[in-house]
Amino acid sequence: MISTEQEYRENLKKHAAAANIRVESAIHADLSRVLNECDPLLQEIINYAVFSGGKRIRPLLAIICSRLCGRDDDDLYRLAAAFEYLHVASLIHDDIIDHAQQRRGRKSLVAKYGFPSAILTGDWLLSRSMRLVGELGGQLGLTVFCQATESMVDGEFLQLRCVANPEATEEDYFRIIKCKTGNLIASTCEIGAIYGGASDDEREALSLFGDKIGTAFQVVDDLLDYKGNAQETGKAVGNDFVEGKITLPFIRAYAQADASNQALLQQLITGDRQSRQSYQQTHNLITTHEGFASAEKTAQALIEDAKKALHLFHQHSDQESLTVLQALGQYILQRKK
Amino acid sequence: MISTEQEYRENLKKHAAAANIRVESAIHADLSRVLNECDPLLQEIINYAVFSGGKRIRPLLAIICSRLCGRDDDDLYRLAAAFEYLHVASLIHDDIIDHAQQRRGRKSLVAKYGFPSAILTGDWLLSRSMRLVGELGGQLGLTVFCQATESMVDGEFLQLRCVANPEATEEDYFRIIKCKTGNLIASTCEIGAIYGGASDDEREALSLFGDKIGTAFQVVDDLLDYKGNAQETGKAVGNDFVEGKITLPFIRAYAQADASNQALLQQLITGDRQSRQSYQQTHNLITTHEGFASAEKTAQALIEDAKKALHLFHQHSDQESLTVLQALGQYILQRKK
Repeated sequence: MISTEQEYRENLKKHAAAANIRVESAIHADLSRVLNECDPLLQEIINYAVFSGGKRIRPLLAIICSRLCGRDDDDLYRLAAAFEYLHVASLIHDDIIDHAQQRRGRKSLVAKYGFPSAILTGDWLLSRSMRLVGELGGQLGLTVFCQATESMVDGEFLQLRCVANPEATEEDYFRIIKCKTGNLIASTCEIGAIYGGASDDEREALSLFGDKIGTAFQVVDDLLDYKGNAQETGKAVGNDFVEGKITLPFIRAYAQADASNQALLQQLITGDRQSRQSYQQTHNLITTHEGFASAEKTAQALIEDAKKALHLFHQHSDQESLTVLQALGQYILQRKK
Repeated sequence: MISTEQEYRENLKKHAAAANIRVESAIHADLSRVLNECDPLLQEIINYAVFSGGKRIRPLLAIICSRLCGRDDDDLYRLAAAFEYLHVASLIHDDIIDHAQQRRGRKSLVAKYGFPSAILTGDWLLSRSMRLVGELGGQLGLTVFCQATESMVDGEFLQLRCVANPEATEEDYFRIIKCKTGNLIASTCEIGAIYGGASDDEREALSLFGDKIGTAFQVVDDLLDYKGNAQETGKAVGNDFVEGKITLPFIRAYAQADASNQALLQQLITGDRQSRQSYQQTHNLITTHEGFASAEKTAQALIEDAKKALHLFHQHSDQESLTVLQALGQYILQRKK
């Protein structure tokens, strides 16, 4: 019986490490088979993209959800690879759009290999991920996966619409992150559940769990963009501000601010966002108006909701997998990178 | 009984027009359903991209191949839409890579809406196409489709590798166009056949047919890039030369040229390719060394091979569909745009 938080964390680490070894090996096997006859540069770039020290949270989620529903076999790890491929594809295309120079502490793919390669590599990974999900997740799995992918694009458009718009609402924000992250994580859990042979109730519960932790993940990501340590996160701090992305800490602070501070925040987000001084001033205003504290509380509440979604499994035989999912929620909340 | 070439053409036109009406309506229905709740800009851009006066050759091929194998129902036109989506997605991403300002006689999507929108719209269409093929073409259809998509990316990498390299061989060229066009058209025909309930032999025959006409299509495309009329093709003539793409007319002329003319061609393709004079000089050298005539002959031979691949269907009950496929081959050879 696991009881202390420390034990939860250790248990998560142990499962994550063991699953990761099998995921890495499934990815290696898959890539070496399909890339075998491809252009050498494509091979090099795909490897650069996929083996970049990612946290592999998505594959882990799919694996644990399938296990919780009763299935754990070799193909599960191939299926899990698909979620990493899609994730990496979206990061590659995102980095083009955001002009991001860095990713995970080294050059972003677009910075290293240029536009054409970055666009094409993203397309290749997108296609490969769909092929795997279609093969292993069946018709329903593919539909869920593609819906999530299309909604990710929709979320990006919504986000572009809200750039540097201080009137962007909390509703806009949550719709954007649901599209960009929530649906994808939900689909990862749901497809894991489908692969595991879940009942409809189990599938829905795991989809809801994914939606909640996915949303929390993004809220924390947006917090780290202001409060993280660049050396730990591997990305420049303050990027969202420079890009004019209105995230929850800003929205919450803006709602709390009086008219003059609102005007100031407006000025800052629509002004010269490259200026470090503007960034610092915005950071201070958000702190003063408890934008960070309030966003943190929301992330906590989302993780609580996520755990509640797992209620269905409390009498379940596989308590170990359940514990891992719960610990994952906690990890998402506390992560520093 | 159709006998004259004129009758063949009229028959093709009639079938293409009738199929096209149903494809357009299937695309409209599909998009209005799935785009309904999406960001208005995404809706606008998808519509700009998909309704742009494309020739809809791919949907027609899928439809006729399915009919030839015995199936023609409403869902066939939804499936056919998937091939247009993938095609449009690849054009959008290609135009980013090639810095193309124009497409089909108007602004390319990237020129009109910018980078982020063009990347994302391509991704959306890619995903949507795969969802449709997974739903209607089954497991095997999706595998064929994704393989073709991945090979398209591989072909682009190979092409980048051969840019402005006068030593690029005919083998390189045919491998590139097989990856970029042949496999995709082959997969379109094959998936149409799968949907139609083809036997293995029929499926292979139609895949081979697609491969041959796809390759011919690209050879003709590359000829039109030198010899087409910009007002008819809707793209700038001489684009491939400017981009440093080594295509069949160049390769054939280079092989025929003596050492001094080879050196001159080398100079031209590695020099200032923006210069109209360089382009004209290259054009003249290709003409003198019968590069155009020789490439045209190859296109003709490919179409003959394509027609031979259809031999299996000569005793088939649906001679009308067979005639349309044969006429399509002829059309590809003679097209001016």
